[in-house]
Amino acid sequence: MEPETEAFLQKLFAEDSDLYQDRDFQRRIGWGKKPALINVDLANTWTQAGSPFTCPGMETIIPAVNLVLAAFRAKGLPVVFTTVAYEITEGDHTDMGLWAKKIPAETQVAGSNAMEIDERLGRRPEELVIVKKQASAFHGTNLASFLTAAKVDTIVVTGATASGCIRSTVADGIAEGFRPIVVRECIGDRIAGAVEWNLFDIDAKFGDVEPLKAVLERLRRNEPYSNEYPVHSDD
Amino acid sequence: MEPETEAFLQKLFAEDSDLYQDRDFQRRIGWGKKPALINVDLANTWTQAGSPFTCPGMETIIPAVNLVLAAFRAKGLPVVFTTVAYEITEGDHTDMGLWAKKIPAETQVAGSNAMEIDERLGRRPEELVIVKKQASAFHGTNLASFLTAAKVDTIVVTGATASGCIRSTVADGIAEGFRPIVVRECIGDRIAGAVEWNLFDIDAKFGDVEPLKAVLERLRRNEPYSNEYPVHSDD
Amino acid sequence: MEPETEAFLQKLFAEDSDLYQDRDFQRRIGWGKKPALINVDLANTWTQAGSPFTCPGMETIIPAVNLVLAAFRAKGLPVVFTTVAYEITEGDHTDMGLWAKKIPAETQVAGSNAMEIDERLGRRPEELVIVKKQASAFHGTNLASFLTAAKVDTIVVTGATASGCIRSTVADGIAEGFRPIVVRECIGDRIAGAVEWNLFDIDAKFGDVEPLKAVLERLRRNEPYSNEYPVHSDD
Amino acid sequence: MEPETEAFLQKLFAEDSDLYQDRDFQRRIGWGKKPALINVDLANTWTQAGSPFTCPGMETIIPAVNLVLAAFRAKGLPVVFTTVAYEITEGDHTDMGLWAKKIPAETQVAGSNAMEIDERLGRRPEELVIVKKQASAFHGTNLASFLTAAKVDTIVVTGATASGCIRSTVADGIAEGFRPIVVRECIGDRIAGAVEWNLFDIDAKFGDVEPLKAVLERLRRNEPYSNEYPVHSDD
Repeated sequence: MEPETEAFLQKLFAEDSDLYQDRDFQRRIGWGKKPALINVDLANTWTQAGSPFTCPGMETIIPAVNLVLAAFRAKGLPVVFTTVAYEITEGDHTDMGLWAKKIPAETQVAGSNAMEIDERLGRRPEELVIVKKQASAFHGTNLASFLTAAKVDTIVVTGATASGCIRSTVADGIAEGFRPIVVRECIGDRIAGAVEWNLFDIDAKFGDVEPLKAVLERLRRNEPYSNEYPVHSDD
Repeated sequence: MEPETEAFLQKLFAEDSDLYQDRDFQRRIGWGKKPALINVDLANTWTQAGSPFTCPGMETIIPAVNLVLAAFRAKGLPVVFTTVAYEITEGDHTDMGLWAKKIPAETQVAGSNAMEIDERLGRRPEELVIVKKQASAFHGTNLASFLTAAKVDTIVVTGATASGCIRSTVADGIAEGFRPIVVRECIGDRIAGAVEWNLFDIDAKFGDVEPLKAVLERLRRNEPYSNEYPVHSDD
Repeated sequence: MEPETEAFLQKLFAEDSDLYQDRDFQRRIGWGKKPALINVDLANTWTQAGSPFTCPGMETIIPAVNLVLAAFRAKGLPVVFTTVAYEITEGDHTDMGLWAKKIPAETQVAGSNAMEIDERLGRRPEELVIVKKQASAFHGTNLASFLTAAKVDTIVVTGATASGCIRSTVADGIAEGFRPIVVRECIGDRIAGAVEWNLFDIDAKFGDVEPLKAVLERLRRNEPYSNEYPVHSDD
Repeated sequence: MEPETEAFLQKLFAEDSDLYQDRDFQRRIGWGKKPALINVDLANTWTQAGSPFTCPGMETIIPAVNLVLAAFRAKGLPVVFTTVAYEITEGDHTDMGLWAKKIPAETQVAGSNAMEIDERLGRRPEELVIVKKQASAFHGTNLASFLTAAKVDTIVVTGATASGCIRSTVADGIAEGFRPIVVRECIGDRIAGAVEWNLFDIDAKFGDVEPLKAVLERLRRNEPYSNEYPVHSDD
């Protein structure tokens, strides 16, 4: 984003924050005890050049996500990746639902390399990949069931796009009863301004937007899974 | 089922029906304009011998489902198959959620032949396969979105098991706003009695249980898709 | 239920259990750390005489539920009641959805005494009442959000009817990631046999059906809320 | 919004639209056959002065909504209002879920005048009021069931706020399979810029943002309900 644009938006957000502070919005949701990492749509069609869905900035976003991934793996905490893929992209009886009437969803074909998780993230077999059909990682998927059964209470969110799947995932996340923490350096979008205004809205009302450094520091202090908080029945 | 058992259950259902009729239950929901066929869990682990999930009776159920399939295909109406498959079947962070704490879900491994749709049904590429994680075909899946976007108003249900995925799919189906029609000859279960008492409960409160012959006759009279009821915008 | 009927069903269930045991079904889900009590549809239309929804046996069910209620209240654990109530019971644009096409839902009018929680249960102001429109306490309600935000992992279920709202609530409960425990003495239904076959199916696949005595004993041993398992952020 | 701010945002949106047009986003979803009107959170706490939730601009928004309402009523098409109201606003077991950890939800008390639909809208008894607990009108409510059972295929959306409940309702609406149409003059928010950037994002990817005049014109041409598209079974 051009410096002039950024300066303008920051000034606008500062004025808006004054109102929100007066009204007692922009509260901190904080972390619970057991976070899961939700990497939203870091598949090739978003992370690589040459597709309608390509997002800029992946040269810094991917390494930042890898730092968060390492922190989760070190603690044995759950890691989830999402992607999108459609089985039927022609006719009226398609699993795209209505979305192809707004965006080029018909390019997101199941089984294509475009919809695979970017190899730079080194996804492991025990890390769940959820194939969604709509923007939110929760909509029409087993994500909430998975997290609830695993006694997760906090979702750390990375990926793309701020104005689409990130925003919807965070809004659904708090609605479902999980604390959303969005890692600022790990979020991408296609168009100028969209990361900024969507993270501003999110931080005001739906989840905490935190810098990478603070997230990594918090994870270092988190109890590793299995010591403190077993999923198994106590009977 | 042994004749004595069947006779006993029919006598019990007759008494129960008297009460339901007095109370004005057991109403008919009827058909809407655009039905979809939902074939629940007709994958090999249920339809073939030798698995914990094997259901008897498939030698008559599969041919009956094929008659319903032919009727839907002749009209260009939507056909959906469901199966179950888990990516991660060990540890606490599994996509089985809590279900393996009740049933042998850990045998339902993604990518195995056991979870493929039975070949005798001749599933076509334009017929959606929904991989679910729980009993209901609607829970944690895009089925409701798919049906709503396709303007479906009626779901014709076949498959297994009566006491598990059929029952949950029908209960969710009417709750979501679709008319469930269950084809009596197309429903299987593992244990004696379960088809009978579950279809009795369903017919009383959640959907119409109809004989195959009536379903086929009704489908013959249904408008083929695309003539009458286009999904496209009218603008 | 007549003794002859009960004997017949018990014999049938014993045979079915043999198959389930061979197949490794009927596992025990067990209790987690923080249970909530979900009292399903113990409103007057089900608990009092003279309505289409009246269930027999409330003279023993209500006192049994009161024992469970006392145990939850003693520990400060969450208690929820559900009822059904419709705002618009005429015309095609009704909040009954399609349910009145199967059952006499049009008698369940919002604001009527029939849909109030039975006074014998002494519901307290801090105990949530969820007004649902369909069978499952989870469908179209904030129940899952409420439970997840409160870090509940186990749902103890009482109420009516076994073949309707209890069955659907338990099936959704495990699907959402909560451990369902059904208290046998606390479940009612309208028709002979329905409590028995629905609890049999539930115990085989969706939740543990336990006697009242065992539930009360387990609750006595449960940590009271707030000592062990705070909902608040730890930051 | 100050003219300088508006000019700046319009310039930014124009650049962003160039990219979206190149990428084949910003498609038109169009209208189906049977729209419903969803008036989101036009309750006093948003529409009247003096609350943390107050939105400016209601002196033009309310009259604009009334024009849309009149058009729906003239055709007998479904009208829904939403509001928010919490029964339990203290302690950890609250129906606010986690939302009060971000916003002053604890002021939205059930039964208070603040949460009643603004009287200027003249809500009629046959127009459904849905009490939601989270941002989206679909989340934890029976809205999708209601719309599906009523064979609605299009949702016309008005109300507040653009950055909260409108955005979430529209994103869920298309995900559920309904065509969202947002009436530009009928949308409010608390902070400068939020209406503009949220409607920009919505129009690019989730629903069509249309001027009031075009919506009214389209509704004039819509078939009245009951002539063309009966909900009843055809059997």
